[in-house]
Amino acid sequence: MACNMILVMLLNRYYSFLCQNATFMENEAVWAIDIGGTYTKLGLVTRNGAILKSSKFSTGAGAPFEEFLKKLENESKRLLTAANIRQKIIAVGVGAPNANANTGHIEHAANLRWGDQVPLKESLTRMFDLPVTIANDANASALGELQFGKGRGMENFIVLTLGTGLGSGIISNGQLLVGAHGMAGELGHVNVDPGPSARFCNCGLKGCLETYVSVTGMRRTIFELIAEMTDDSALRSISFEAMTGEIISKAALDGDPIALKAFKMTAETLGVQLADTAAHLDPEAFILLGGLSKAGSILLEPTIAAMEQNLFAAYKNRIKVMISNTSGTSTILGPAALAFG
Amino acid sequence: MACNMILVMLLNRYYSFLCQNATFMENEAVWAIDIGGTYTKLGLVTRNGAILKSSKFSTGAGAPFEEFLKKLENESKRLLTAANIRQKIIAVGVGAPNANANTGHIEHAANLRWGDQVPLKESLTRMFDLPVTIANDANASALGELQFGKGRGMENFIVLTLGTGLGSGIISNGQLLVGAHGMAGELGHVNVDPGPSARFCNCGLKGCLETYVSVTGMRRTIFELIAEMTDDSALRSISFEAMTGEIISKAALDGDPIALKAFKMTAETLGVQLADTAAHLDPEAFILLGGLSKAGSILLEPTIAAMEQNLFAAYKNRIKVMISNTSGTSTILGPAALAFG
Repeated sequence: MACNMILVMLLNRYYSFLCQNATFMENEAVWAIDIGGTYTKLGLVTRNGAILKSSKFSTGAGAPFEEFLKKLENESKRLLTAANIRQKIIAVGVGAPNANANTGHIEHAANLRWGDQVPLKESLTRMFDLPVTIANDANASALGELQFGKGRGMENFIVLTLGTGLGSGIISNGQLLVGAHGMAGELGHVNVDPGPSARFCNCGLKGCLETYVSVTGMRRTIFELIAEMTDDSALRSISFEAMTGEIISKAALDGDPIALKAFKMTAETLGVQLADTAAHLDPEAFILLGGLSKAGSILLEPTIAAMEQNLFAAYKNRIKVMISNTSGTSTILGPAALAFG
Repeated sequence: MACNMILVMLLNRYYSFLCQNATFMENEAVWAIDIGGTYTKLGLVTRNGAILKSSKFSTGAGAPFEEFLKKLENESKRLLTAANIRQKIIAVGVGAPNANANTGHIEHAANLRWGDQVPLKESLTRMFDLPVTIANDANASALGELQFGKGRGMENFIVLTLGTGLGSGIISNGQLLVGAHGMAGELGHVNVDPGPSARFCNCGLKGCLETYVSVTGMRRTIFELIAEMTDDSALRSISFEAMTGEIISKAALDGDPIALKAFKMTAETLGVQLADTAAHLDPEAFILLGGLSKAGSILLEPTIAAMEQNLFAAYKNRIKVMISNTSGTSTILGPAALAFG
């Protein structure tokens, strides 16, 4: 009986500690920063995923890293003043292409011309004077899906971000798969064309998945198709540089024959690769996000068909492919999940 | 002070429990069974990896599963009588191609013609009347390497068994990567040739890695080379069925030009794939075992060269490729690690 009483007392104390802590936690927010090849999004996010305030600016991937830092500093100061939040800001989470969680550097990012080793964590720690956690942008997105998105309740899934490049993040046994050197999940750079006419990649290799399956990859496919086909297409009046993922997706949704064919080819390349990735990781689902995913079933259906056709028998009809709910500034939920740890 | 005394008493009790248990554990052994496409190896193994007794028999992959069970029962009885061990046998660990740890079945094994769903765990639980743990043969090998082999001290590595087929097992964050359906690590069935003349695989797909990188794959390559080349070769006098991994490795070590060329081609295909697998998992090392790995540096050097040439920059010169120490009956150490759990 004495023993039971002690137990009850301990439980009561634990419960009251939890309650205090929960209230405390609602009063906390983090800086969440998503650095993309084209835009950088940033915002203030609470622990339950409420975005208090957010904005975006052009990354300037071709200009020096220092200019990016200056823009980020100005934008975050502006946002903080405008937000006038009551929460205490406790940390910073950053997703960026090729960000290495172990070293704190952006390493060899094919779509950011800032050098081979960019000291991101160190620079932002100085700027914000807060604990900074960085990760590969797609790894951050995977954590965001796990905590706030379609990955909730799943233990094994893979996120693919189909933006300027192709990023990926792997959740295995309910945790982010980081790898031996902090660089797991670079599916943009698996080879999908071993032939002599494979496309050159910014990373120095040839035939990388992201040279086909990404906004940039689709632009290359569309330009080949414009040269090859004679069909009318709204895309014929748009330059390579001006052709965004939104424009391509909209053209496909409007029934543009070149956009539709490009999506079919892109989806087939993606589906064949998903079958190979399944043979590595046996996931419950693939979750697609980023520019190309806006095309919905135009991308999804041929991707699933190609994947199923190439899946090893043991995986057939067992693996879902879905499109994320996150879009626009809600992509900062990934970095937010990272910051809360 | 009273609190400290209670703590000391508890620690003393725990220590004496641990000591008793350690002695007890040395007196335990397990049945370890490695089912291969050609041979099945079995033995009795202690917790520290000592093989008390072992033997092997022909699997008979073409005959019914019931015949295999009969052979296994007879061989285990014979072994137990001959062994006359003092240890208590507490469990059974089994590695088999396409064994699913979740369902207890061998599922769709390309190189065992026993049907799509073989109730392995159930059958062996009845036979041995002991707890049975089954796993994909290469997953078991990965656990064996982690516990007793070259993987000791590593948290992230991948084992590839280059035997009749190609199996793989992934250790991630120090644990076996199992996947959502218990079937992670089927690298034998990733596609390495998307072209129209890709080789047919027993699994129903075309261009699978194991149709090139395995003993069977090398036989196919050698038969193509015998047809194509005019060089003298000891392999010209050997039939397809009779050409084992040992024969091929020996010919290469003797300088046979066809065997050497076949190893070079096989290693290049393997190396290119390892680069893609690294882009998924960012491992510290790949550990090769099985028939083909006996060729040592003849396999290893061109594999590493091809991998490095195709690695994404962030992984270059960071990933080791090594050959396992386990060979012959010591491959049962994997299933033994599995049984001890």
